[in-house]
Amino acid sequence: MEPTTGTADLITETVEAVRPLDASAMRDARDLQNRLTKPPGSLGVLEDLSVRLAGLAGTCPPPLPEPAAVAVFAADHGVHAQGVTPWPQEVTAQMVANFLAGGAVVNAFAGQVGARVSVVDIGVAAPLAAAPGLLARKVASGTADMTRGPAMTADQVRRAVETGIEVARELVASGARCLITGDMGIANTTASAALISAFTGLPPEDVTGRGTGIDDATHAHKVEVVRAALARHGLLPSSPADASRPDTPERNASAARTPPAPAASAAPAAVSVPPATGRDPLDVLAAVGGLEHAGIAGFVLGAAALRVPVVLDGVIAGAAALAAAALCPDALGACVAGHRSAEPGHAAAVAHLGLRPLVDLELRLGEGTGALLALPLVQGAVRVLHEVATFDSAGVSEKDAGA
Amino acid sequence: MEPTTGTADLITETVEAVRPLDASAMRDARDLQNRLTKPPGSLGVLEDLSVRLAGLAGTCPPPLPEPAAVAVFAADHGVHAQGVTPWPQEVTAQMVANFLAGGAVVNAFAGQVGARVSVVDIGVAAPLAAAPGLLARKVASGTADMTRGPAMTADQVRRAVETGIEVARELVASGARCLITGDMGIANTTASAALISAFTGLPPEDVTGRGTGIDDATHAHKVEVVRAALARHGLLPSSPADASRPDTPERNASAARTPPAPAASAAPAAVSVPPATGRDPLDVLAAVGGLEHAGIAGFVLGAAALRVPVVLDGVIAGAAALAAAALCPDALGACVAGHRSAEPGHAAAVAHLGLRPLVDLELRLGEGTGALLALPLVQGAVRVLHEVATFDSAGVSEKDAGA
Repeated sequence: MEPTTGTADLITETVEAVRPLDASAMRDARDLQNRLTKPPGSLGVLEDLSVRLAGLAGTCPPPLPEPAAVAVFAADHGVHAQGVTPWPQEVTAQMVANFLAGGAVVNAFAGQVGARVSVVDIGVAAPLAAAPGLLARKVASGTADMTRGPAMTADQVRRAVETGIEVARELVASGARCLITGDMGIANTTASAALISAFTGLPPEDVTGRGTGIDDATHAHKVEVVRAALARHGLLPSSPADASRPDTPERNASAARTPPAPAASAAPAAVSVPPATGRDPLDVLAAVGGLEHAGIAGFVLGAAALRVPVVLDGVIAGAAALAAAALCPDALGACVAGHRSAEPGHAAAVAHLGLRPLVDLELRLGEGTGALLALPLVQGAVRVLHEVATFDSAGVSEKDAGA
Repeated sequence: MEPTTGTADLITETVEAVRPLDASAMRDARDLQNRLTKPPGSLGVLEDLSVRLAGLAGTCPPPLPEPAAVAVFAADHGVHAQGVTPWPQEVTAQMVANFLAGGAVVNAFAGQVGARVSVVDIGVAAPLAAAPGLLARKVASGTADMTRGPAMTADQVRRAVETGIEVARELVASGARCLITGDMGIANTTASAALISAFTGLPPEDVTGRGTGIDDATHAHKVEVVRAALARHGLLPSSPADASRPDTPERNASAARTPPAPAASAAPAAVSVPPATGRDPLDVLAAVGGLEHAGIAGFVLGAAALRVPVVLDGVIAGAAALAAAALCPDALGACVAGHRSAEPGHAAAVAHLGLRPLVDLELRLGEGTGALLALPLVQGAVRVLHEVATFDSAGVSEKDAGA
């Protein structure tokens, strides 16, 4: 374990290593797409994606995003005590055991698409026995209850972000060329809703969903819990505490309240993500986030610094990506929205980030399952730049320019 | 080659072999989904799909849909002479050569998802040299111009449908457990629009798209060509010839004009697809279809008869599936809509069939590319039923029923 002073530098060093997308490589990729044996533009969103991944790699064609590795960040949440879900907290640890035994949906989907599964114990509220595939990186035994105080200390949130950076580095060092976010943590959609409200400026009722499928009464209570937590930490949109801040009221009022439409464009790096209410993004994570949110935010930064694409899963990853983008807007260039989940907060997050989800099938499981389904699409988009013949090389006639 | 009398029986025999989805296997699959270690319903559309594929197979879990084989049905179109596209007709044969050399997008995507590619020359307007991967089944050297007469003779359309059935049988006999439709044919979106208008009752301007990306003037001309062809054959929706038919006016006015909303439901077999204007679906195919449409319609029937899922690609497959469903509504139970293409006629076709596309990325290439991208999703949906642990077997607590 690094000392605090040393680890504090890891975040700064990682953020500083992130580069904007390479315009020259993107131009080359667009030119190549137009010479391949298919009508220009006929691969739709996947052409834009291939161009962006060329920009990320700084070369055309970019390396094939394989092999891929999914990291499932597992943690518990003090806010579980507020009755936001009917699932007992021990299910987090039980599902970790299920992942490690290969019995969960994330394992089935990873097997289908050829990805490796690692589980990161970044904050499960129970001791976990060592096992193959388990990365023991517990920062704390769950967060504290965000309705009563900060979910994490300043030191904990830094260590969780650093852990995510380190996991990204380790997976890439072991050969992964595409990273995939996964998550497990009973009550983590509650923390996600709080983060998304804080970072987008949307009210809690617009971004708080039904998670595992709670009933109306539990949902109404969950919205009030999110609102209370945000209010306690001065993060509630439109709250007096927010409006009176002198540094960023306009920015919040315009940029945060009017998320950009989902862009088919390949250049989300152009999107400006304002820090929530002008606060340090790490403070926001510490106040209402989860250890897995902080870990995934670091994982995104780590991937971006290494110019490796990271496929985001659902609402937990969306909330974490908002934090990562607030810390480092250029990190968005590495992010691929794997899918749009059934959680309303997730649609708000990807819209705010200007990302276009690749799969949209009303999934709401988490674990990395939606991102894994998108992996072959990401790989196929890049493979086209490597393998498809040009009109010239294949001797295929182009269309009559006069028509 | 079978004699005409023998081959005439193949269509009837195949249609009669298609069974409705097995309700008992579907019930078992739904029950199993609810006991797996995930919140019930959290796999969204993929749960419904897994239930339907259990119904198709008549057993739970259904066999894994792998290995998969894509058949690219290639043919030319007499209506090309009407100037509906700026691409020269010889591009059909050139692209077949590109497929066989492994240089097209269909090859790259098939490689990505582990599917085998076969190219069926069912009607290319040029002699093609024998090559590995090419199935030489030319029924005619392209269709006739549908604006001047029927595109195919009655004998040709039967032989083309039979060819599709035979190709499905051969691929399954050689081990394929999931079939995928592909197509190649310059001007085939024009024939697709005509078929979709005839089978759905929607006017030509609503279902005629830009194909490879034609300009406004060419598009306007293409709509008029589709309208003229439909009118010539008494297939134009709302035309006097149509309205005066005594046998099915109400059915056309209600069912055909008001397509059902895309169903998340697993039971498209409940959808009733009226024959266009009461005409024999083979007559409609002969009048305004392509040899690849007839071939794909047979391919769908062949897959359904063998209880093997068939993943439909874009607008050409959508038009062909309308014909197949008109011949045999239960064949829809085997059909998975791989994606929603950018062609407006495709959205109309899948809506009419009650299918929910799995991928929606503004693709408009054809060849089978959109269906190939959906393959891992279909396979993942079934794999869940084989591999994921139940709450009981994994020792995971279920949610508190009282909450």
